Amino acid sequence: MEKRKHDEKNKEEVVSKEEIRYKGKLFEVVSEPVEIDGKTFAFEKVRRSPGVRLIIGDGQGNIMLTREFRRELSEFDYRLPGGKVFDSLDEFNKFKQSKGNIIEKAKQAALKEAKEETGFAPDVLEHHSTSKLGATVEWDLHYFVGSVNRSQQGVQELETGENIKVVWFTEEEVKKLILESDKFSEERSVATLMRFLYRTETGVESIPKEEGHRLNRPFGIKRFK
Amino acid sequence: MEKRKHDEKNKEEVVSKEEIRYKGKLFEVVSEPVEIDGKTFAFEKVRRSPGVRLIIGDGQGNIMLTREFRRELSEFDYRLPGGKVFDSLDEFNKFKQSKGNIIEKAKQAALKEAKEETGFAPDVLEHHSTSKLGATVEWDLHYFVGSVNRSQQGVQELETGENIKVVWFTEEEVKKLILESDKFSEERSVATLMRFLYRTETGVESIPKEEGHRLNRPFGIKRFK
Repeated sequence: MEKRKHDEKNKEEVVSKEEIRYKGKLFEVVSEPVEIDGKTFAFEKVRRSPGVRLIIGDGQGNIMLTREFRRELSEFDYRLPGGKVFDSLDEFNKFKQSKGNIIEKAKQAALKEAKEETGFAPDVLEHHSTSKLGATVEWDLHYFVGSVNRSQQGVQELETGENIKVVWFTEEEVKKLILESDKFSEERSVATLMRFLYRTETGVESIPKEEGHRLNRPFGIKRFK
Repeated sequence: MEKRKHDEKNKEEVVSKEEIRYKGKLFEVVSEPVEIDGKTFAFEKVRRSPGVRLIIGDGQGNIMLTREFRRELSEFDYRLPGGKVFDSLDEFNKFKQSKGNIIEKAKQAALKEAKEETGFAPDVLEHHSTSKLGATVEWDLHYFVGSVNRSQQGVQELETGENIKVVWFTEEEVKKLILESDKFSEERSVATLMRFLYRTETGVESIPKEEGHRLNRPFGIKRFK
């Protein structure tokens, strides 16, 4: 009974709507009031418009990666083809207000990115998973899986300054490649590729969910003044 | 020769210092002018103060995870123990100006987090790797590896609302657990754990770096007006 009381006391609720503190082209920063133990805290959060990533096979055990330059690392590395779903955060917010289907919208963007970045047009794309980033940074990546015929590569349509090379690897090669952080650095794609590649090999044991209630560490919360 | 000319033309340079567009407790949004093909573009970027994560073993093949509630998913999941290095972005920026050693500073924070979150105080922590997030969101996570005696757990010192449970898993269990996105959702830690766990098993082949020059897709760049 004591525990239950404690859990009830710790109940966390979003007490009213978020306030926008900054609004740019790609990002907005919002402040969300959250009630913990009867006190209201301001929870600072960044929102970024979502992206898409593609896991494309050739039906013969190979996976397509792209080789690009990463400005923030001053290095080349391999990654999954992909890009953004909306040109700006404004468009994303309008889409959310219209209650559109984000997975369908992301799939269209993924098809477009596949054609432009790689020259390949998969007939069918299936939604694999959506990666959430964290409590304080909202930036979803929607992952899609498809298959293409390697002899049917069209012309890449790259943007100014883009130099993207398509490279095919066997699944075993990809498993090794993603272990090397300096060759494949986008770690959300590392996790998704691992989950995709090991999907049939591992009988994942079900770890039972336990009872209880716990509040996330509210990084940087502060009292309203 | 033609290719070389093209590469030179595509040279990308940060032409002057960044401008701060927003400054909050945890985040700042900056605009960085970047020159591509002789034109200057404003590159919008978010910066977050860095965090730490701990991979702690018991010397007997088990790894410590914590079980917590993820507000953004409304779900419990497992993660690596960890927290922040600085209480605010201001402190982080001051530290950078002082030219301090961020790995040493992060190690101290990791030790503090280990004690508070888990009740365990590892004698030695080794820096394993630092995860970079991406070109547009700067948010480093510093990973440390250590070892503790499982019979020497002290008292956790949790913050208001925190309910963190320490759970030990064998390495094989962790390998399965990180394949399940609803049980272990922090994907940067999935990638790091995978790289840690498979470190001795896989003879990683060296994939040669190729020549060439490529500019990263500058998400959301726009011309100065």
